[in-house]
Amino acid sequence: LRSTARVGDAVIGGRSVAVIAGPCAVEDYEGLLAVARTVKAAGATILRGGAYKPRTSPYSFQGLGREGLRLLAEVGRAVGLPTVSEVVDERSLEEALTYVDMVQVGARNMQNFVLLRAVGRAGKPVLLKRGLAATVDEWLWAAEYIMAEGNRQVVLCERGIRTFEPATRYTLDVSAVPLVRELSHLPVIVDPSHAAGRRQLVAPLARAAVAAGADGLLIEVHHQPERALCDGPQALTPGDFCRLVRELHHIAAALGREVLRGDLGAIA
Amino acid sequence: LRSTARVGDAVIGGRSVAVIAGPCAVEDYEGLLAVARTVKAAGATILRGGAYKPRTSPYSFQGLGREGLRLLAEVGRAVGLPTVSEVVDERSLEEALTYVDMVQVGARNMQNFVLLRAVGRAGKPVLLKRGLAATVDEWLWAAEYIMAEGNRQVVLCERGIRTFEPATRYTLDVSAVPLVRELSHLPVIVDPSHAAGRRQLVAPLARAAVAAGADGLLIEVHHQPERALCDGPQALTPGDFCRLVRELHHIAAALGREVLRGDLGAIA
Amino acid sequence: LRSTARVGDAVIGGRSVAVIAGPCAVEDYEGLLAVARTVKAAGATILRGGAYKPRTSPYSFQGLGREGLRLLAEVGRAVGLPTVSEVVDERSLEEALTYVDMVQVGARNMQNFVLLRAVGRAGKPVLLKRGLAATVDEWLWAAEYIMAEGNRQVVLCERGIRTFEPATRYTLDVSAVPLVRELSHLPVIVDPSHAAGRRQLVAPLARAAVAAGADGLLIEVHHQPERALCDGPQALTPGDFCRLVRELHHIAAALGREVLRGDLGAIA
Amino acid sequence: LRSTARVGDAVIGGRSVAVIAGPCAVEDYEGLLAVARTVKAAGATILRGGAYKPRTSPYSFQGLGREGLRLLAEVGRAVGLPTVSEVVDERSLEEALTYVDMVQVGARNMQNFVLLRAVGRAGKPVLLKRGLAATVDEWLWAAEYIMAEGNRQVVLCERGIRTFEPATRYTLDVSAVPLVRELSHLPVIVDPSHAAGRRQLVAPLARAAVAAGADGLLIEVHHQPERALCDGPQALTPGDFCRLVRELHHIAAALGREVLRGDLGAIA
Repeated sequence: LRSTARVGDAVIGGRSVAVIAGPCAVEDYEGLLAVARTVKAAGATILRGGAYKPRTSPYSFQGLGREGLRLLAEVGRAVGLPTVSEVVDERSLEEALTYVDMVQVGARNMQNFVLLRAVGRAGKPVLLKRGLAATVDEWLWAAEYIMAEGNRQVVLCERGIRTFEPATRYTLDVSAVPLVRELSHLPVIVDPSHAAGRRQLVAPLARAAVAAGADGLLIEVHHQPERALCDGPQALTPGDFCRLVRELHHIAAALGREVLRGDLGAIA
Repeated sequence: LRSTARVGDAVIGGRSVAVIAGPCAVEDYEGLLAVARTVKAAGATILRGGAYKPRTSPYSFQGLGREGLRLLAEVGRAVGLPTVSEVVDERSLEEALTYVDMVQVGARNMQNFVLLRAVGRAGKPVLLKRGLAATVDEWLWAAEYIMAEGNRQVVLCERGIRTFEPATRYTLDVSAVPLVRELSHLPVIVDPSHAAGRRQLVAPLARAAVAAGADGLLIEVHHQPERALCDGPQALTPGDFCRLVRELHHIAAALGREVLRGDLGAIA
Repeated sequence: LRSTARVGDAVIGGRSVAVIAGPCAVEDYEGLLAVARTVKAAGATILRGGAYKPRTSPYSFQGLGREGLRLLAEVGRAVGLPTVSEVVDERSLEEALTYVDMVQVGARNMQNFVLLRAVGRAGKPVLLKRGLAATVDEWLWAAEYIMAEGNRQVVLCERGIRTFEPATRYTLDVSAVPLVRELSHLPVIVDPSHAAGRRQLVAPLARAAVAAGADGLLIEVHHQPERALCDGPQALTPGDFCRLVRELHHIAAALGREVLRGDLGAIA
Repeated sequence: LRSTARVGDAVIGGRSVAVIAGPCAVEDYEGLLAVARTVKAAGATILRGGAYKPRTSPYSFQGLGREGLRLLAEVGRAVGLPTVSEVVDERSLEEALTYVDMVQVGARNMQNFVLLRAVGRAGKPVLLKRGLAATVDEWLWAAEYIMAEGNRQVVLCERGIRTFEPATRYTLDVSAVPLVRELSHLPVIVDPSHAAGRRQLVAPLARAAVAAGADGLLIEVHHQPERALCDGPQALTPGDFCRLVRELHHIAAALGREVLRGDLGAIA
């Protein structure tokens, strides 16, 4: 029997293929609201948005912090979507517990064992990204750190690994999806946006993930990608996203699964 | 406009998703005939079988050589399928030109430029596997070696790259499919069998490949995988293969493409 | 002008090649004292020992925590060596500031930006290990997080990267040494023990590191490796370590640098 | 007992550390002669020069072929150095047997088993480069293909492997040196030029290789690197090379081995 995670009204795992979408970073209320309305209308069931952004350089935009979490919660309520956001230490975790429905541990913190234990104690569902050089085995052990604290609501997220290939930002290891389903009871989703690094590749990789058996997707959508403060080149436009969800619906159906189609009439 | 390759009556590229199937190595007439009948009935349009096998150790089974090519041709004629087999030098190429409809350049020879030029001059369609540490860019340059000799019938085949992950034999780089389709006019297919190294993963990877836009698949099928002389653990049984082709048919349809369903009644 | 870091009486950077040695984990007073006496006699100038151990599995030995730091400090004082130990969050950092002379940020935390900022504010010298899939560029940016808080006492430590090669635990990227010396003013040292994963390879890698221009080495030594609670297979015996330091002395001299020879008479 | 290979009057393996040097490609008699005189005077004992160049693009300079082999032999005789050059198929091998003293199998052909068998039958000493994604184990099996044909004069050459690090052309796997010495009786040398891809890194990597126990080095030297037809950025100038050999002499001595110092007076 495979596990599921309940995030607000949404469920990850089971027959439905969950679509989590939203901008890389929360930037402002209006922009986030615009994205949230579209992704909900297209069928997304969880809203994502980063408030604490781990960035390679200390001089890059680091996210809005608590204010970002507050805006995410407000927009989530306004459109009726549960929310997920990344935490980076116990302080940001404590804030996140107030504002969001699911906490994310990012790839760079996959073996930050102090953080894993803390999210394990916190009780909210956890989205655990695979480290960029972590084996599937190490990833499952990282999940074990969370579960050993009593929290079974863990969702694994493949987001690409480091290889020699320079044409993509990372190499999406699509085999990780059936591997996790063979080795673990936990739901496994895929983030094609970070793997690809370029929006042109996001749709094919998202389709591949669903076809391989993923329990969900995490997709970056921005209403004006060319103005995004973070990772604009990999963000889908709302229009791209709507088209993609329609394709995913058909692929999921081919496998006896379901991707919600949303209510596109609601956009207008 | 995208290119296509014509292999006997089959076409690779275009609306159809080609399914090439057969054993890793040609072992004997009866076994090959059994596999060939099943894969044809299930919808495969090209028969594969190795006669010259590049093996890590000089003491492993190296293939039947010319006799293997002869058996492959004979079985292909018997069941009505065109054939493809790997060549490893000018001598095996010359033999292959007599017997098979398409020649394969293996991953380990992707930058054997003498061989690339030779298959370029030979005129038959060429299946060019990606080297296990080749970038997409280097792979396209390898194709250019073939085309520079006047042969435009080149089909690229992604078969997994070398990474740090030990849970799969190689890491299938599914992103290579949309990348090639963006950068080149050549058809691109996927070999999930070598990438996975274990039959349990072959079906999900094959589905992912089609969903990502692959123009075809190269799948190892053996009537008795546990007795195979080469790569048995990654070979599908005929039954597995039939089930997989049915799934692929639905996924291709979701994308407006087609996988032939064969005539399973023909097996009985 | 290249930077140096001052750790107690020891200096990292400059003409001397610093040798940091000790067990993977602090286990008990007697064992640590035995190792500390030997490594000092052999020429080591800083004593290492882990108290907070990041381990793949939550069920492996996790270190003695504060008690381990206390024992390390006590033994350091007893033999007259400054000490370094890994910190994993702000709590362990606060404890470490009481007990040790240099704090280490481990490979798995190289992009734990919260921790980097905290050690940046703390003021003690920092040993920053390279992440196992971090580019040299990302590693230098991680150091920048520390320096941006006003702490210039950063020492970089190459400890092997993740590659496809299974014969070593990691692949020592010896090129990182001259690269760092070209791109940065910071001292760079090498940890051959974690890279190799087996004691037979530690000496050749240590020699290679010094020959490539490393400003120091971090070497695991255990008085009874077969009984070590952590990473025993890669620990040198005290005798191996003494022989190695003698070789390093000669190689450093060949480059106009110096490795202290210690006073081996002191062991008896 | 470790094996040695005899190349003209030079020996690879044993107490001496062999230095093989010369340009990436043979371009013309005068240039090659100038390089050959300098490298001999500096202490090199074998002259290298490529005549058949495997290049990523079919439109890059492919080498002078047989004429290049002829020039190499002529210059070798003129300065009194034995020679080594790469072969890429049976035809170039046959030519090489007439002209050079050792044949090289390049990284891209490490698993071109037809070529391995052919050089095994040919009887001349073979320099076998490691494939850019080959494990040490696969590399030793490739050597076994040569030895299985009766040729025991095989020298292994580590030249860098493919990893995620973009700051170097390849990642020199210096651990391969002690690994090969542990697992095999064959001599193992290192090519720091291809690994580094930039001349600034060649000297530190060459020193590291000798310190790790390498039996020799293969170093690219060009009299006018900025005009080289191939791989100019990684070629040392004659002056750089002389300085490097002097450093290597001291490092080898520290390990009880020897690098010939040549007779620099002979340059003037």
